[in-house]
Formats: sequence, C-alpha cells, structure tokens
Amino acid sequence: MNKRGLILVISGFSGVGKGTVVRRLMEQYKQYALSVSVTTRPPREGEVHGKDYFFISEEEFSVMEAEGRLMEWAGYVGRHYGTPRDYVFERLDEGKDMILEIEVQGALQIKEKYPEAILVFVAPPRAAVLKERLLGRGTESVEQVEKRLLRAVEESESMGAYDYLLINDDLPTCVEELHQIMQCEHRKMRVNGELLDDIKLDLKRFVEGE
Amino acid sequence: MNKRGLILVISGFSGVGKGTVVRRLMEQYKQYALSVSVTTRPPREGEVHGKDYFFISEEEFSVMEAEGRLMEWAGYVGRHYGTPRDYVFERLDEGKDMILEIEVQGALQIKEKYPEAILVFVAPPRAAVLKERLLGRGTESVEQVEKRLLRAVEESESMGAYDYLLINDDLPTCVEELHQIMQCEHRKMRVNGELLDDIKLDLKRFVEGE
Repeated sequence: MNKRGLILVISGFSGVGKGTVVRRLMEQYKQYALSVSVTTRPPREGEVHGKDYFFISEEEFSVMEAEGRLMEWAGYVGRHYGTPRDYVFERLDEGKDMILEIEVQGALQIKEKYPEAILVFVAPPRAAVLKERLLGRGTESVEQVEKRLLRAVEESESMGAYDYLLINDDLPTCVEELHQIMQCEHRKMRVNGELLDDIKLDLKRFVEGE
Repeated sequence: MNKRGLILVISGFSGVGKGTVVRRLMEQYKQYALSVSVTTRPPREGEVHGKDYFFISEEEFSVMEAEGRLMEWAGYVGRHYGTPRDYVFERLDEGKDMILEIEVQGALQIKEKYPEAILVFVAPPRAAVLKERLLGRGTESVEQVEKRLLRAVEESESMGAYDYLLINDDLPTCVEELHQIMQCEHRKMRVNGELLDDIKLDLKRFVEGE
C-alpha cells in the first residue's frame, strides 16, 4: 500500500453526526489527521489558534487566496473560511490521510482542483432521524432546526457528485466503513506507482538472474 | 448499498494463487459467483459442461462473437475462449457480484466495454515466491515454470491499467482485502442512484410534511 496520505473530504447534512464519526475514526486509527481551516472571524471563548482554526485577517486571507494557497474557500455572513494548502500537503507527505470536514460547495471545489481527493457523503438512515438528532442537541430552536432541514434538501442536490455514500445508522459501523473506504483507496493502482515499479523490477531481475 | 451485482475482473501472474483466493472468497461470502467461460476446445476427463466451461463449436462461438454476446474473448493454440454476456448479466441482475478470472488482454477488453467493471491485479510479495509456488505444484517442469515467469514479466506491463493492486502474501488477508474492495465499491455513489433518490425524496417529503 502507498505511504503518502490521501485527501478525504467528508460532508453531510447538519445533525447527521459526521463530526462524531470523524473524531472516532481519528481515535481508533492513527493514520488520520484533521485539517485546520483558516478563518477571518474572531475566535470564540476557548477556541485555540492552530487547533480549532487559524485566525487570520481579511488581508492575509486575500493574499492566501491570490497566491493559490487555499484549497477551497467560502464566505459566510461576511466572514471567510478556507482550507490551507500547505498545512494539508505537509501532512500528506508525512503519510497522514487528511480529513477535510467541509460543506458541499467547498467539496466540489476540492474535487475540481484535486480529482484524486475522495469525497464521502454521510446521510442519515431517514430524514426523521436528522430532526431527532438536531433537537436532541438541545442547543437549537425549532426554527433553527427547520432551517437546517431546508438546507439539507438543498445540499442533497449535490450529493451525486460525491464518490461514496455512507449511511450513519450505527456509529461504530459507520466509522468502520469509512476506514475501509480509505484502506481500499490506498490499494488503488494509481496511488501505488512506486510499488508497481518495484514489483516489475523485482520480477525482471529475478527472471534475468535465473 | 446497491442490490445489483458488480463485475469483478481478477487477474494475476500464474502461480500467484488467484484461483485459491477466488475459491475462498466464494466459500466465505455468498454474494459472489464465478463466471463460466465458453470454449471451443473439447472437454477434458471429468470436466462438466456448464460448470467448468460451456463447450461449444467454432460456429457457435463465431455467432456469439458476431452478435456481441461475448464480453471478451481470446484465441489460444487454435482454440477460442470467451465470457458469455447473458450468463454474467443474468446473475448481476440477481444481485451476484460476478467474478471473471481472466488474463490481462481479456481484462482490458472488459474495461473498455464495461468501464464500471472493477479490475483487481493480484501480485506476489516477491517474484521468488512465484517460482516457489509454481514449483510447489509439482505438476510443471522447470522449463514450463521459466516460461510462466517470462510471461509474468510481459503481463506486468499491463498492471497499471487495473483499478486495484492486491498483494497475496497471506491468503486470509488477501481474501479479506478483496472482499473489502467489493464492499467499498458497493458504496460508490454511482451504483447507488436508487438509494440516493430515496434519500432525497424522504428528505423532501419530511420537510414538506413539517
């Protein structure tokens, strides 16, 4: 299997539990690391620079964008968010599979620029489950939940562009399936050029040495 | 996951143990079935029509080929061999993942006509292992083994066209990895159009019903 890390883009409706899936995946397997986004919004209470986000100015953001140092970016209520290319690629070189937990528009940007990225969409077994989970958080009003559900309907129109569909019914199963997808992606011929060359060379040398 | 079966093409150097991998896979998981080839060579002692091969005449073979009823075919020492399309597709419709254990040239034909087919190449951990296994069979002369190794060198040039590279070092591991590849392929978005539509519809209905 190849040593270099792969880019895993994970999206899903709000409330589907993708954050929990990602956290569990990283707890169970050391090969994964989570990308840290840059943002121009100010840090909230308790947020740590370089852990939750890289907090940067609008000017710094513009420079990064202009220099092609953002893998994807988006604006949201007057603030900007983006995925820093160098942060991700340095860790890919170290052999980490880099997880980008981003929304649909960002995911599509990634797929266009980095077609080798693996896009996984996490869906609930039924829409009703989504609502239960959102209400179960206890932090959101019924109106906010309604809004998120409407957004899910919108997002569902872009699901077809993803590589894999994962149903988060049972959490451990979902984590295991996601890990298996990544294991299989590491066995793809196109990421194993080096191993392929080794096999060819070994075979040739062996036959010539006979 | 989708219900319809997928086409799995499996190739590998002579002696790599792909036959054993396939047999084990089918013993352990009921979702797989092996394609039965047509051939114009006469049956050998003990071979059963419809199990080992479908034994047909050169005329019948020509008609099948002309009518596009062969997924791939090849000539070998004056005889013809091919994969019957209807046999494979009927079982795909029944939900079986159909295994085509064929050589490189046939595999490339399949990939061209059926780009959705999954091509897996099984390689040995080292070329030396290949020789050991070939000699270990005890049925082949040193010359025959040498010939097979030379052929492996040739075949290795086409490995890059396969989707996955699988190393058969430990048999149970190799079987498990092959099964995982197929499980992952069943989670591909492109084979889950129906499930995708169901999710969208469920979501829309749920939100409208709110």
